[in-house]
Amino acid sequence: MYRIKIGCQLGYTTSTANPAVFVVQPPAHQRQMIEREALRLIGATPAGEFADTFGNRCQRIMLLPGESQLRYEALATVPPEGDAIASEARQVPPEELPSHLLRYTLPSRYAETDKLLGFAWETFAHVPRGWTRARAICDWIHDHVEYKRGVSLPQWSAADTIARRQGVCRDRAHAVIALCRAFNMPARYAVSYLPDIDVPDDGIPMDFHAYAEIWLEGGWQVFDPHDRFPRKGRVFLACGLDAADAAFATLYGGARLSSFEVWADPIPLYEPARAQARNDARDDARHDRARAAAPAAVAPPLLAVVGGAPLA
Amino acid sequence: MYRIKIGCQLGYTTSTANPAVFVVQPPAHQRQMIEREALRLIGATPAGEFADTFGNRCQRIMLLPGESQLRYEALATVPPEGDAIASEARQVPPEELPSHLLRYTLPSRYAETDKLLGFAWETFAHVPRGWTRARAICDWIHDHVEYKRGVSLPQWSAADTIARRQGVCRDRAHAVIALCRAFNMPARYAVSYLPDIDVPDDGIPMDFHAYAEIWLEGGWQVFDPHDRFPRKGRVFLACGLDAADAAFATLYGGARLSSFEVWADPIPLYEPARAQARNDARDDARHDRARAAAPAAVAPPLLAVVGGAPLA
Amino acid sequence: MYRIKIGCQLGYTTSTANPAVFVVQPPAHQRQMIEREALRLIGATPAGEFADTFGNRCQRIMLLPGESQLRYEALATVPPEGDAIASEARQVPPEELPSHLLRYTLPSRYAETDKLLGFAWETFAHVPRGWTRARAICDWIHDHVEYKRGVSLPQWSAADTIARRQGVCRDRAHAVIALCRAFNMPARYAVSYLPDIDVPDDGIPMDFHAYAEIWLEGGWQVFDPHDRFPRKGRVFLACGLDAADAAFATLYGGARLSSFEVWADPIPLYEPARAQARNDARDDARHDRARAAAPAAVAPPLLAVVGGAPLA
Amino acid sequence: MYRIKIGCQLGYTTSTANPAVFVVQPPAHQRQMIEREALRLIGATPAGEFADTFGNRCQRIMLLPGESQLRYEALATVPPEGDAIASEARQVPPEELPSHLLRYTLPSRYAETDKLLGFAWETFAHVPRGWTRARAICDWIHDHVEYKRGVSLPQWSAADTIARRQGVCRDRAHAVIALCRAFNMPARYAVSYLPDIDVPDDGIPMDFHAYAEIWLEGGWQVFDPHDRFPRKGRVFLACGLDAADAAFATLYGGARLSSFEVWADPIPLYEPARAQARNDARDDARHDRARAAAPAAVAPPLLAVVGGAPLA
Repeated sequence: MYRIKIGCQLGYTTSTANPAVFVVQPPAHQRQMIEREALRLIGATPAGEFADTFGNRCQRIMLLPGESQLRYEALATVPPEGDAIASEARQVPPEELPSHLLRYTLPSRYAETDKLLGFAWETFAHVPRGWTRARAICDWIHDHVEYKRGVSLPQWSAADTIARRQGVCRDRAHAVIALCRAFNMPARYAVSYLPDIDVPDDGIPMDFHAYAEIWLEGGWQVFDPHDRFPRKGRVFLACGLDAADAAFATLYGGARLSSFEVWADPIPLYEPARAQARNDARDDARHDRARAAAPAAVAPPLLAVVGGAPLA
Repeated sequence: MYRIKIGCQLGYTTSTANPAVFVVQPPAHQRQMIEREALRLIGATPAGEFADTFGNRCQRIMLLPGESQLRYEALATVPPEGDAIASEARQVPPEELPSHLLRYTLPSRYAETDKLLGFAWETFAHVPRGWTRARAICDWIHDHVEYKRGVSLPQWSAADTIARRQGVCRDRAHAVIALCRAFNMPARYAVSYLPDIDVPDDGIPMDFHAYAEIWLEGGWQVFDPHDRFPRKGRVFLACGLDAADAAFATLYGGARLSSFEVWADPIPLYEPARAQARNDARDDARHDRARAAAPAAVAPPLLAVVGGAPLA
Repeated sequence: MYRIKIGCQLGYTTSTANPAVFVVQPPAHQRQMIEREALRLIGATPAGEFADTFGNRCQRIMLLPGESQLRYEALATVPPEGDAIASEARQVPPEELPSHLLRYTLPSRYAETDKLLGFAWETFAHVPRGWTRARAICDWIHDHVEYKRGVSLPQWSAADTIARRQGVCRDRAHAVIALCRAFNMPARYAVSYLPDIDVPDDGIPMDFHAYAEIWLEGGWQVFDPHDRFPRKGRVFLACGLDAADAAFATLYGGARLSSFEVWADPIPLYEPARAQARNDARDDARHDRARAAAPAAVAPPLLAVVGGAPLA
Repeated sequence: MYRIKIGCQLGYTTSTANPAVFVVQPPAHQRQMIEREALRLIGATPAGEFADTFGNRCQRIMLLPGESQLRYEALATVPPEGDAIASEARQVPPEELPSHLLRYTLPSRYAETDKLLGFAWETFAHVPRGWTRARAICDWIHDHVEYKRGVSLPQWSAADTIARRQGVCRDRAHAVIALCRAFNMPARYAVSYLPDIDVPDDGIPMDFHAYAEIWLEGGWQVFDPHDRFPRKGRVFLACGLDAADAAFATLYGGARLSSFEVWADPIPLYEPARAQARNDARDDARHDRARAAAPAAVAPPLLAVVGGAPLA
């Protein structure tokens, strides 16, 4: 079992009041527990909470002119096991799929399966169906689409990513989703708080982490093209057909993201006092690093900017 | 008030059993009444009905090897007025929109607003917001995107249609939707049974008719780029973010559409016996024409073919 | 086909602001069409609309101190046939019932089946199951529970009504519901606007009319113990497990109903102008009669008064 | 944090196939985590899972003729704190309540508030509203309604319980719910797996434990009239308006409960191997005691027997 301090701090600058929707709070989930939630706003006013059709916890917030800030903190508990390896999990044929899953087999904005049918079948039809094929697709993306920050555009979809062979977690997740749907596997886009447990620090500032979930008999399974091994401590945050449904921030206007931090720090189960202190220190270090990195960063890939005047 | 015989007859040929979902039955709606429904299958077996998240009435059906046929008939009653002209209808700013409408302001598979922000603002920002701007967008599509059958591909999205300036009702609806969303107007794709009332017969075999609905204060409003005047007798069939959500047929496999007829024939309110006879005659004429036209027709644009092996 | 002017006018007196929920607007329904709705408030403010879990259209309204009034008007169109007689309709055994219907086989506040199992089985077990048994129950209530206004209390449930053999439409509907549930037939409480078509005027001021709906294979069927023949022109308004779910008014406080009118007047399909005039005259006559009758009337049986200080 | 082995084993005897619905699996919940679920059936067949309108996880199961058995096991993790004490929690007036909570202020089958308005106001109107009044009601039930097994009948409602001053957890919960609703506090019936943590063993075989939840600003709060102090380790199982909605078993027929065990055993966080062994031993002891106690037990109070022939 892991206890993980999760949270984020988002800063915005805007010259006019800017309505927004934020999805930063993990929902109820059989395999995670969320305690001591706190959502704080500075220079912004709450405008109602709602659950969308995917069950995401959406916060409507008005960013006021000037600087504003949203800070979320919570304590998550998740099982000790890493992402499941269910290598026997069967693909359920379309006629047997529960009805509410059918939509996940069809194209969506950033996972345009209908454009990728030929590629998908040519490349993966020979792989045994079910878990093995989903795994093969996920590994192929890991191997052939380079993780690279700052190259992809928010408009990139799976076909773009597969053509250019580069992208961030969002892009790679879309590619996995689009290819799995080509074989009628229900596939959805998911976002998580993902701590660094038993992995080397890669020096990259933490972000909301997007990955794919594929529905095989028994339920949704994690397929994350970022790693070739199961990750531990993943805290499920949101899901949808693709990033259009599950952006952490949807802005109706021209507010500019001025600062951005996400954290997911495991804490010891039994030494809360010492752990806290040590952890705070680590936090500070990380956050300093994050701030240092910020100027160079392009707009975080999971952010949706909608409507409003185009940014010149 | 109009009473309209609506229905469709769809024939398929398939070499292997082919799961499918059909949406041909209009839902309950404040302004339409559906009586004497009959859905008949030949060479196909029913596999359960469900309502999707948009309220569409979805029929799961297994098409059996060989020839199969689905025939739906019903009697619809709708108000005598044509599509509403609500020229005072106000656009509701994002912060005041009901939460369940927010998703309709974001990009979707075939209405990729995020690619069209620049064009939309350049072309329509000077038009007064609300009904007037939605109307201007709809008329612009009517005038600048030629209605032409057989040119567009199922993968075409709004950006393709606007670039090529040609398409069918589906394509033109997507274009209206994508452009309206650029101004944060909730926009959805809708499909109807649309009779020819007070319009000249254009000689085109009847089809499911797709159009756009824009949400302005007070509710969803019809914006149909096919006509520059309000149509009468429209029977709402289905809706969604775009055609991916509201196809009349979603096929999981290689079944081929071998015949296709849609009808929406107004009948007199008071002479049921004579009307029926006259009407049947008209039906026969129309259907003969439809059959004659069929060989030359490309795949009907509202049909979604998903998954399965690519068609070589 | 019938066109029916439906509506109601409710007056309240209250000394303090009194929150309330009103359900007076018919929902979308396959077999009815609702046009030209108008809901007007005097001395009261709207506080939001919502659909409850039964799909009822609920209006939150604040009644202000003094006199307040709610007036609803609409034009309904319904099929020409009366309530269906589906004498072959099969009862579906519990294991085959759609899951969302299971709750309707269990006891509820005013239809406490669990208290009436013995009576139900003793009296109706010999009748063939399905439509025939539901019909027998409905007719038994018609024959053995006298329609009488002013005797029943809002707290009366099915067991009370069956014991006392008197009640109004609400009470008789609850009795039918409770007894049908004893045989595992899904049963719900429904409320309608019910015009007098092809029935003699019984001189009773019109009210919202409650009746039972029993689910037999194919859907919900009307079982109205008020009449032994199918009624025409029924406009479905609301439903629920029993009257607790489907009251036309739920008051949180001590507001007193000071005036009460409900109407459902068929109008000719083809002479709108003359019909309107004639009809208005009839309305006036009816409403005068209603007003005359009001002083003597007990609290209308479909009104729920909840919480607040007990009256006296 | 507590890890708790939860589960139940239910045995039935029936002479004919007997459809049933079981609710024994806790749902997703912000403050609990459910792992390693296993549901096993002997002499019974699964017939579909569904979520009801309260979010309860319902299993449709067909009990076959002869002996049948359902066994459920899972590992729950819950926070270390006991039931919250939110003594500042404000009661939200009806006009400010979220719409989906309004139904919880109205009477239901076993919490017939409408019959208890006078008693409630006479007894509790002088207590400050909000948490304090809900607490006073809960404590009054604890003090004045004796916990006694084997006296109450399944048909007993809150009014019966308050009149007779005896009952089990189900009855006492209904009484709290009915009285709180009299003051317009949304109140629901909840069922839990409740371990004995920091409480003396009372020698009573464990059962599903029913209690009340009252909605005060911020969310649903536990009010359990069984104890005058917060309990630890509670695992939320199901909820509804009252026991009609949240029975662990709903039987359509005459199956007889022949054996019944429920467990909720805390296990150490860090010595899984030893803990398991020790725990299994404790289980065995408890279960032996449960079996010994079974013959004397009346039908467990949370079981709903519906429809079917009355039991002689």
